[in-house]
Amino acid sequence: MIFLDNAGTTPVLEECKKIVDRCLTEDFFNPSALYAPSIEVSRKIKEARESVLSDLRGAGNLLFTASGSESDNTALFCTKKANGSRIIVSKNEHPAVLNCAQELKQRGFDVVFCEVDGCGRVLEDSFRNLMTENTSLVSIMHVNNETGAINDVKNLCRIAKEINPSVIFHSDGVQAVGKIKVNLTDLNVDLYSIGGHKIHAPKGIAGLYIKKGVTIRPYIFGGGQEGGLRSSTENVGGILSFAYAVREAVRCQKESAERIGLLRKSIIDELGEGFLAVDGEKQSPYILCLAMKFVRGEVMLHSLEKYGIYIGTGSACSSKKSHKNLPTILGLTPEYENGIIRVSFNRFTSENDIECFKKALKSEYNTLLKYVRG
Amino acid sequence: MIFLDNAGTTPVLEECKKIVDRCLTEDFFNPSALYAPSIEVSRKIKEARESVLSDLRGAGNLLFTASGSESDNTALFCTKKANGSRIIVSKNEHPAVLNCAQELKQRGFDVVFCEVDGCGRVLEDSFRNLMTENTSLVSIMHVNNETGAINDVKNLCRIAKEINPSVIFHSDGVQAVGKIKVNLTDLNVDLYSIGGHKIHAPKGIAGLYIKKGVTIRPYIFGGGQEGGLRSSTENVGGILSFAYAVREAVRCQKESAERIGLLRKSIIDELGEGFLAVDGEKQSPYILCLAMKFVRGEVMLHSLEKYGIYIGTGSACSSKKSHKNLPTILGLTPEYENGIIRVSFNRFTSENDIECFKKALKSEYNTLLKYVRG
Repeated sequence: MIFLDNAGTTPVLEECKKIVDRCLTEDFFNPSALYAPSIEVSRKIKEARESVLSDLRGAGNLLFTASGSESDNTALFCTKKANGSRIIVSKNEHPAVLNCAQELKQRGFDVVFCEVDGCGRVLEDSFRNLMTENTSLVSIMHVNNETGAINDVKNLCRIAKEINPSVIFHSDGVQAVGKIKVNLTDLNVDLYSIGGHKIHAPKGIAGLYIKKGVTIRPYIFGGGQEGGLRSSTENVGGILSFAYAVREAVRCQKESAERIGLLRKSIIDELGEGFLAVDGEKQSPYILCLAMKFVRGEVMLHSLEKYGIYIGTGSACSSKKSHKNLPTILGLTPEYENGIIRVSFNRFTSENDIECFKKALKSEYNTLLKYVRG
Repeated sequence: MIFLDNAGTTPVLEECKKIVDRCLTEDFFNPSALYAPSIEVSRKIKEARESVLSDLRGAGNLLFTASGSESDNTALFCTKKANGSRIIVSKNEHPAVLNCAQELKQRGFDVVFCEVDGCGRVLEDSFRNLMTENTSLVSIMHVNNETGAINDVKNLCRIAKEINPSVIFHSDGVQAVGKIKVNLTDLNVDLYSIGGHKIHAPKGIAGLYIKKGVTIRPYIFGGGQEGGLRSSTENVGGILSFAYAVREAVRCQKESAERIGLLRKSIIDELGEGFLAVDGEKQSPYILCLAMKFVRGEVMLHSLEKYGIYIGTGSACSSKKSHKNLPTILGLTPEYENGIIRVSFNRFTSENDIECFKKALKSEYNTLLKYVRG
């Protein structure tokens, strides 16, 4: 199997599996109980929290949640916002942010959508023009999940705070952590979403960074876990394996990004006639968005399946819907607009994987083209 | 180790661990992707959903959530409620319901708290008196997590619907499923919360039953998973192991309940001077709430720890706070009110476990009493 849909999910690290198994066995205790083994589990959770904060250079709190989407929802719904105030999101945010924004619009907020360039990167001027003193919340993702474009979050956050020092700036960093360098203190964001299963942790665990001094309201009310912000018995196995996965991803980040960047480039360099690559200046090496002329993305996906090669056709979270936004954002002409595929890597992706992929892609494209042309 | 805090959490079934491991290995795919292995994972989730619904005789939908608390929050916040309408909860609900109710009160709803008897069981007359045509939501737990009292949910639901046919009736069944007989169609509830880790599934997975025809709003917005009601990449390992755990718990329910009921009775029968047992007519065999004269619950908990015996002092979710409600509900005199312990069983609890516990409890109580009396 050659798995090239790593922006959708990733295989789980062996060590993460061991951690999960340990938490389901000797560490099965409820961290809220008062006896020693529970207190020990509770201590390990604290350690995991500090570990992730330290790896991402965060100064504040880390809330463990069950998904990147939950983190995004918490950021958008639980921050303090004056009724009717402005909320800015970029127009190609993940559906977890976009659909919260739509809901907030329904609730009477002045939700506006920031323009992006042909690679899906937020345009600074568009953002500056939208940003007002009355803006209570901004949510702009760090790395776009469909194109891999890296937003200059630090700069956008600076601009936002110049115009309204009390604005809350959230960034969805699910595709950034472990893939590009993330220094939360340097970015100066107030809230930052992190996911587990995109960096080889299990599904069902994620985090929301909350900068020191920033207050949010609870998302789940109850027994008072997670500082009362997200009451629920802690998913101990998820939390501990997540902290391990973040540590490893961050430790390997620089070296892996260089290597994967070269593999990505080698695909672009060898693309034949009929392919367009989305490749901006600021780009995650882990995502390659391609558009094919005359051939549908979904058809190519199934063609490559025969080789045991798995790719995506865009965000897994919208794989079953048509891509309304993406072709427009990329400025695709009609012959390309149904031909989007997303090839995404992980730090274990090998040169051989990529060679096989290139060969299969070329071969299948030529075959499919014949059918199209009849 | 003799683990007698099973209302707090339970050890995970070996088969559940295997299922989780399989989902982290060969079945790691994102269920939303379009290639065959993802579709297969998606099919298994569908099967798991149908399995739980069938085991609990539900006619409707089952939402997979990350915790019983999330299920309760979804039930309380995402149902349609006219502004200012009445919401009824019992006064000893789990904090996940009580704190949602407090929040809804802040938001202008007419939240009222139903009285319970000395075993923590909802008083039918109190409920009937509170129930109005203007009541939009009722939330009354099936089995109380502190005393094990079983509420007559079927009857309360019937009364509610007689007075307002369009009322939404929710019940938190986290301590009921697998412990007592649960037939959702017979209960006729609109919403019903189920937890995983109280019935030997991993932490981080739970469910909310939604009766056919009942509509709720989304709790997590995003990519549209779970019918758009709870967007998030599915916690596949959690979901599949949860369905297995429910199946096994339901399969063993009748026989285990009888056996555990006898063990529980044997403790009550042999309680010496200085102990009160909460033991109503309608009672889960899996929970035994005791009050001790002059000895603090927490002190007993730590005393039993020396024997490798683990008990609770009430809900794990409020273990770190004082029990404001419980002593009052139980009508305890001052010499008993700090002496509450919760002993809770699982279907693997053995006769030997209980014999050891009884011996240790008696011995430690006598020792501690000497200190108290000086």
